[in-house]
Amino acid sequence: MPKCVLTIAGSDSGAGAGIQADLKTMAAQGVYGLSAITAITAQNTVSVEKFQVLPPEMVEAQINAVLHDFPVAAVKIGMLGNAEVINVVAATLKRHRIRKVVLDPVMVAKSGDLLLERGAQEALREKLIPLALLITPNIPEAEVLCGHPVKKPGDRKAAARTLHRMGASFVLLKGGHLPGGREVTDLLYDGERYYYYRAPRIVTKNTHGTGCTYASAIAAHLALGKTVPLAVKAAREYLQSILPNGLTIGHGHGPMDHFSAGSAGGGKGL
Amino acid sequence: MPKCVLTIAGSDSGAGAGIQADLKTMAAQGVYGLSAITAITAQNTVSVEKFQVLPPEMVEAQINAVLHDFPVAAVKIGMLGNAEVINVVAATLKRHRIRKVVLDPVMVAKSGDLLLERGAQEALREKLIPLALLITPNIPEAEVLCGHPVKKPGDRKAAARTLHRMGASFVLLKGGHLPGGREVTDLLYDGERYYYYRAPRIVTKNTHGTGCTYASAIAAHLALGKTVPLAVKAAREYLQSILPNGLTIGHGHGPMDHFSAGSAGGGKGL
Repeated sequence: MPKCVLTIAGSDSGAGAGIQADLKTMAAQGVYGLSAITAITAQNTVSVEKFQVLPPEMVEAQINAVLHDFPVAAVKIGMLGNAEVINVVAATLKRHRIRKVVLDPVMVAKSGDLLLERGAQEALREKLIPLALLITPNIPEAEVLCGHPVKKPGDRKAAARTLHRMGASFVLLKGGHLPGGREVTDLLYDGERYYYYRAPRIVTKNTHGTGCTYASAIAAHLALGKTVPLAVKAAREYLQSILPNGLTIGHGHGPMDHFSAGSAGGGKGL
Repeated sequence: MPKCVLTIAGSDSGAGAGIQADLKTMAAQGVYGLSAITAITAQNTVSVEKFQVLPPEMVEAQINAVLHDFPVAAVKIGMLGNAEVINVVAATLKRHRIRKVVLDPVMVAKSGDLLLERGAQEALREKLIPLALLITPNIPEAEVLCGHPVKKPGDRKAAARTLHRMGASFVLLKGGHLPGGREVTDLLYDGERYYYYRAPRIVTKNTHGTGCTYASAIAAHLALGKTVPLAVKAAREYLQSILPNGLTIGHGHGPMDHFSAGSAGGGKGL
């Protein structure tokens, strides 16, 4: 019986990000993916043309329907849209005592469109970060959550410590947005140690959904029993192996080919 | 560049049916799947605990976002929920002049829960069936759409003719609900000829999402350039190859393992 992983996130009609990317990522790691949709986006590779956050009770009903029937081993959280959804997600996960929670604090789409209402960051900080086993911000998200710029190497460590103090057991600060260099370095912090994940920078415009994919792969590997540092390592390797195989479809940031990793990603599909 | 196929359907949080099954099916045939969600269901292998049909303008926005950016070669239609959504889907597909439309006239979930408002059948008959290259009802759906029982072999041919007269170019009447026998026979009608697809009946309780999967696989093979009779044949073979590999997760009708076909289904993932 495969391990089960739930994603709580938005839907991307273009299928490059959101629950669509999450479920493909999970299948590619050999786990069974389930989904609770928080928001519908009418989106393609160029922009988010329209979006609608669902009523909190509909989000709650989906999470409950899944958790009442499937043995969920890990949860990945992505786009939440507003404070009401954040509050209901936090309360529901708390009630079900879910421990392996990977929180990708999605705020802005690859296209630049805003995916989290201004003012909802407070709920994210107070309600969800304390429940997270791992939070996976990129640099702009870390800046918003911490309230200070993250430019120099010292800023990153300080941001990781700040997010850890907010209650996340582990903080993964992704380095993709830092300028220059032929390498991307992600920083993981567990309250004591810093772990560095270095990988060659892959230059491609087909980066739609990289954040969703990374966090989902981590959740999948946590469900498979890995520790956080090793789950991050496996997920980073998966992302690295599929990034060069982006699909040049659509007129903007194309999606990745989630099933192109071969054995590198841990499996060829569930 | 992979072929693109759009599914217009409901979301199943349990991921065994709906757009989740559609996208997995499409990936397994080697095409890139896109989705316009019509309704959110809070669903698992046992029941549909809650559902909400989306506003027609949100459905329209998703279809437009996809069709404005991706070269969509075929469309699969599943759960629509109500007459307003049916009307907007029909109008939008007509405006974009989409020809390869596979219509799975979803009315009831595997659990027995109603997925189409009573009274919406009229809109389905008048607006969508005339746009369909292929309609894929099971026996109960054919009975509702035709208004007469479909029990004897003669009834099936009559039902196929009735649905063809309503405007679908091809009618695929699925035989799974007919009683007894060690075989399942699906009947395809093109207005002149009848084609029979016979396969051994596979006894399993893990049948959640078979209808979605079948129709999505047909749409994928149409996008790949097959004729309707050959696309049905390829999709039937795919379904037949994954049906024995159902996943016994959850407490009711479990999902299939969409990536278990190996080369039989046409590919091991996009």
